[in-house]
Amino acid sequence: MTVTLGTSAKPADEPTAEAATEALPAAPGPDAHPGATDPQVRIDVPWLTEYLLGRWAEDRKVARAGMREERYHRIPGQTMAEHRERVTGQLHQLVADDAVHRAFPARFGGRDDHGGNIAAFEELLLGDPSLQIKSGVQWGLFGAAILHLGTERNHDEFLPGVLDLTIPGAFAMTETGHGSDVAACATTATYDPATQEFVLDTPFRAAWKDYLGNAARDGRAAVVFARLITLGVDHGVHALYVPIRDADGAFLPGVGGEDNGLKGGLNGIDNGRLHFTEVRVPRTNLLNRYGDVAEDGTYSSPIASPGRRFFTMLGTLVQGRVSLDGSAVLASKVGLTIAVRYANERRQFAGAAADGTADEVVLLDYQRHQRRLLTRLATTYAMSFAHERFLDKFDAVFSGAADTDADRQDLETLAAALKPLSTWGALDILQECREACGGAGFLAENRIAQLRADLDVYVTFEGDNTVLLQLVAKRLLGDFSAKLRGADRADLTQFLAGQVGDAALHRMGVRKIVQAVTDAGSTARAVGRVRDESSQRQLLTDRVHTMVSEVALRLRGASKLPPAEAAALFNRNQDALIEAARAHAELLQWESFTDALAGIPDESTRHALTWLRDLFGLGLIETHAAWYLAHGRLSAFRTLGITDYIDGRLLPRLRPLAAPLTDAFGLEPEHLRAAVATGAEGVRQDEARAYYAAQRAAGTAPTPEKSPKR
Amino acid sequence: MTVTLGTSAKPADEPTAEAATEALPAAPGPDAHPGATDPQVRIDVPWLTEYLLGRWAEDRKVARAGMREERYHRIPGQTMAEHRERVTGQLHQLVADDAVHRAFPARFGGRDDHGGNIAAFEELLLGDPSLQIKSGVQWGLFGAAILHLGTERNHDEFLPGVLDLTIPGAFAMTETGHGSDVAACATTATYDPATQEFVLDTPFRAAWKDYLGNAARDGRAAVVFARLITLGVDHGVHALYVPIRDADGAFLPGVGGEDNGLKGGLNGIDNGRLHFTEVRVPRTNLLNRYGDVAEDGTYSSPIASPGRRFFTMLGTLVQGRVSLDGSAVLASKVGLTIAVRYANERRQFAGAAADGTADEVVLLDYQRHQRRLLTRLATTYAMSFAHERFLDKFDAVFSGAADTDADRQDLETLAAALKPLSTWGALDILQECREACGGAGFLAENRIAQLRADLDVYVTFEGDNTVLLQLVAKRLLGDFSAKLRGADRADLTQFLAGQVGDAALHRMGVRKIVQAVTDAGSTARAVGRVRDESSQRQLLTDRVHTMVSEVALRLRGASKLPPAEAAALFNRNQDALIEAARAHAELLQWESFTDALAGIPDESTRHALTWLRDLFGLGLIETHAAWYLAHGRLSAFRTLGITDYIDGRLLPRLRPLAAPLTDAFGLEPEHLRAAVATGAEGVRQDEARAYYAAQRAAGTAPTPEKSPKR
Repeated sequence: MTVTLGTSAKPADEPTAEAATEALPAAPGPDAHPGATDPQVRIDVPWLTEYLLGRWAEDRKVARAGMREERYHRIPGQTMAEHRERVTGQLHQLVADDAVHRAFPARFGGRDDHGGNIAAFEELLLGDPSLQIKSGVQWGLFGAAILHLGTERNHDEFLPGVLDLTIPGAFAMTETGHGSDVAACATTATYDPATQEFVLDTPFRAAWKDYLGNAARDGRAAVVFARLITLGVDHGVHALYVPIRDADGAFLPGVGGEDNGLKGGLNGIDNGRLHFTEVRVPRTNLLNRYGDVAEDGTYSSPIASPGRRFFTMLGTLVQGRVSLDGSAVLASKVGLTIAVRYANERRQFAGAAADGTADEVVLLDYQRHQRRLLTRLATTYAMSFAHERFLDKFDAVFSGAADTDADRQDLETLAAALKPLSTWGALDILQECREACGGAGFLAENRIAQLRADLDVYVTFEGDNTVLLQLVAKRLLGDFSAKLRGADRADLTQFLAGQVGDAALHRMGVRKIVQAVTDAGSTARAVGRVRDESSQRQLLTDRVHTMVSEVALRLRGASKLPPAEAAALFNRNQDALIEAARAHAELLQWESFTDALAGIPDESTRHALTWLRDLFGLGLIETHAAWYLAHGRLSAFRTLGITDYIDGRLLPRLRPLAAPLTDAFGLEPEHLRAAVATGAEGVRQDEARAYYAAQRAAGTAPTPEKSPKR
Repeated sequence: MTVTLGTSAKPADEPTAEAATEALPAAPGPDAHPGATDPQVRIDVPWLTEYLLGRWAEDRKVARAGMREERYHRIPGQTMAEHRERVTGQLHQLVADDAVHRAFPARFGGRDDHGGNIAAFEELLLGDPSLQIKSGVQWGLFGAAILHLGTERNHDEFLPGVLDLTIPGAFAMTETGHGSDVAACATTATYDPATQEFVLDTPFRAAWKDYLGNAARDGRAAVVFARLITLGVDHGVHALYVPIRDADGAFLPGVGGEDNGLKGGLNGIDNGRLHFTEVRVPRTNLLNRYGDVAEDGTYSSPIASPGRRFFTMLGTLVQGRVSLDGSAVLASKVGLTIAVRYANERRQFAGAAADGTADEVVLLDYQRHQRRLLTRLATTYAMSFAHERFLDKFDAVFSGAADTDADRQDLETLAAALKPLSTWGALDILQECREACGGAGFLAENRIAQLRADLDVYVTFEGDNTVLLQLVAKRLLGDFSAKLRGADRADLTQFLAGQVGDAALHRMGVRKIVQAVTDAGSTARAVGRVRDESSQRQLLTDRVHTMVSEVALRLRGASKLPPAEAAALFNRNQDALIEAARAHAELLQWESFTDALAGIPDESTRHALTWLRDLFGLGLIETHAAWYLAHGRLSAFRTLGITDYIDGRLLPRLRPLAAPLTDAFGLEPEHLRAAVATGAEGVRQDEARAYYAAQRAAGTAPTPEKSPKR
């Protein structure tokens, strides 16, 4: 099965995190000397920063340097109109800075560099997510649709104006009545051989194009997705280039629309609605790479199957999901850097120091605060390494280096698995960071609340997360049933009972690495520990595998049922399907993190990151403990042991490393722009403590009403 | 132990949900006829609406009617300055509408009606949460502090200007350096006998008062919390009335401050910072109910213990937490009403109808969508019934009907337990509602995103939720150890092993209703079902009880340790403490819901609500399944059975009741103000379906490229 990223399973005898730990003196617990760093475990921050920047480090650095500049920053408190105006101006600045051409062909001034383009694009979030998404609309959706769905003819005609922003454009795919279900779109483009034109029509209100960036104000044209009808035949959804406004910004005849108005975030983008009434465009405005209409109205396509053609066309647009995945990672890094810096300075509630004085405790020394932030730091590293592989895969497909149908399908499944987890992850992380900063986290001057508001829509656009996970689940099921075709129910039952050996697992193909699993349940029960890397791998892999198998068993025979009954059967298992997909995606993240460890030459840095990976992996197992217990994969004793290990060992070890681990994100003050992350809180705390110390020294402190007792 | 709400444990032989269900024909599953309502199970919506409005229904209705008026509505897209201006104007309208006096004494035009005041206050959220919170600052904090911490002398002098809003005021408690830790506040009020004045000083930057509503713009005075120092003795935190601006809005000498600026929400409130440099106020500006200074500087207080005095003073301010709890409930009702209406009309992705046509499926017929919304509907009902009891308790204490020290402590513990769950709950519910509406949920025209942004800060103000849950945990531990004083470790161990009978459990006192527990673990294992009411009660109660006991055992002996070691021991169990408190609060919610069932005379309505209560209770058990499994309270079989029961029985039964269950929230279109909740989506969907039907009937539909195959 090829859904996976491909994985370099480590040999079983490789030193695990635990072994590595034991070769070093244990890092001190917070009780010994809170906040102190074990001199034996140091993180090579400059090296790790580069490592995290990844293959396209140079593109990221250039873009990141640009985002230090004030002209790219959001100005909090602007009205929607002012914000839109500013962002539009910023897009022109990007053009002037030659920052938008990377993915386009050399003959248009580009570099055909798809990976580098996405990497640089992601960094725009540091200026303002509105700037990022609006530039994504222009060059990543509008322009990319022309590039990928069009032929050279289309490119020559339309791309120059897209690239230099003389033609701002909308990507008119979503309709009011159909969001993630693009195949059901209702707008029609009917070919008229008499005039050799397509006639675009919006048949009813639900077919209005909706939520389109550039549609409310700036757009001069749009790539419109419509059902192509010629000679009385509906050939399904195709894309056409459609001018929508004249040079003065007035709608062209037959085109109408309205402004989506204010939104929960991203208000620098002029989202809006469009509709078409007998709007005529030349035949050659069809983006005709995957389907064309001859002058006489004859339809042709290099892809015979309408279904496959549709998914091929949509597949070229996967870069939106790639870039949202990376953007969610970066937003999480911003939030955590701010919250960790604050938590390392902020003191709250009297503690009891070893010398008997009752100094206040630094937030990050609280167990709960560690639970809140360090677990999410581990998730962010996992998301980051997973994204790097995702981007690598994307580049391989789009550069043509590895561009088979299977590669493209794998890429799409990867996108559908990772984008939901990272975008939901970012909202969870940013919210926890905001709360971890208390009231300060709610102030615009500390950035996090606005970032969360902007990122909110990332979980439902470019494919609703819930819908995407179902795509993953269907792929997992499809692979499962393809490999098991012919096996009868008894085989399945036997398999589910865990009585099956290596060979069958290989046939199953749910994961390439299942050879390491064999009998995860009993292995985990048998070994004295479950916290080493191979146990984590077994437990996580086994869970995906079993969840998919269980659902497959329950759905077996669905194809023989009447459609309504089959649909009902699927619906009764929808929740289980989605959870199986999520488990798969979590495993992908864990594998990416684990593989990334192998690339760290510095032993100490690798040890630190291994602890963090353990926190991620064991954290997943802890989260899903009910499943492991109910399925007999872990004993109660061992489950409770995982929690103790996280609380008693991993969090204390990682606590002093929180600062360098966030420093390695490489974000500068101009990127963070958060008052609480400037060191101001530490200065305030020091000032307060010095004040009281001086008062005590001078003997001027008032006497407490009663003898000290706190 | 008296932490609990007091509960009317039902006799074990009372008909349970399951029994009730079996007496009726089973409600149809969605497969039978999606969206249909079983004629046997109807909800008496008008009656339930009244029931949910509760004891102070009339106050709620009056306030709710006011909030239908446009003049109280938020105008999306206003700048911060415009929004502040509008909200200030709305406060004056409230005064004109005689809507702010309820809680104040009759001689000031009030009604001494504390419960009714809070109920009405909560409804202001429907206009704009900024309006609500700003009025809460003026009358619920600034005014209430004068009322509760002051004497008649203070009342006569200060209340009139507070009530008629001629003196907008700030509640200056929180400092930049100390949020929820009020006891550590650093501002000083030093008595100068020579002039019979208090001198207020801010000793350092961290002691600036921060996040204060009315401080940035409107405030003319403030109730300032400061350490009262007289004759060289620090008597701890007291409150003083301090004028801060002159009639022209300029700071008075010695007073300074700054604007908090833009926030993540609630931007109609002018939050800001204040600081004081030798600001002198008359001796009589001390709010002197709980502590006074004579002309010669002699301090006196009716409460001898400084600690108890401090907590008594703070306890008078519990109404902030009461009202946030209720506001979170109401916001959840708004979000769910919108999301359920949309989910009942919106169709997405082709299904397969019984007649073989491939119509699109209504969102709420999807299992996952039911999981997302119906479980949260159940939580909202639980939160709502719990709030009603909480408000009842609050009124009893503040009206003097039941106002012992124990009553006040119980009230505070209740506040600390319920406010975190409901405010976090509201964020979760609103976010899920926003996502369930897809891109439409992100538009301001659909309300939810802004409501969530405004509610965000509710989880960290009026006591950070994490801090509040620790207060609950400490109370639970305190009660536990008080009751078990003298028991030795062996007793405890024996208890934890579940070998202890009724009598010991009574001594334990963790819950009044523990008589129903006896041996929950083995009982649950022994009975053939776990889904009836008494099993839910046992499982939820046993979990609280065991969690508290386990932590208590681990903390036993802490008092004999050096302070630093004791603090470290507590810190190592912080997460467990917080989770125990959460379990306690969940039980309170479940009990409130269960007790509310007894008050429903209509059998069918009661059946429906019983299913909803079961969904809440079993949902909690499912959420905490890992705990029940690891502690041997539930078998794997039974755990998986709960999930099957939720998915297979409860969700299908409740699905057709989602509309009446949200209708019963009694929210009118003027309260919802959401485009997707107006029926517009249904009209659009019908129009689209009619279009295609007409096309098919006329034979004008284009032929699909290949024979239909979806």
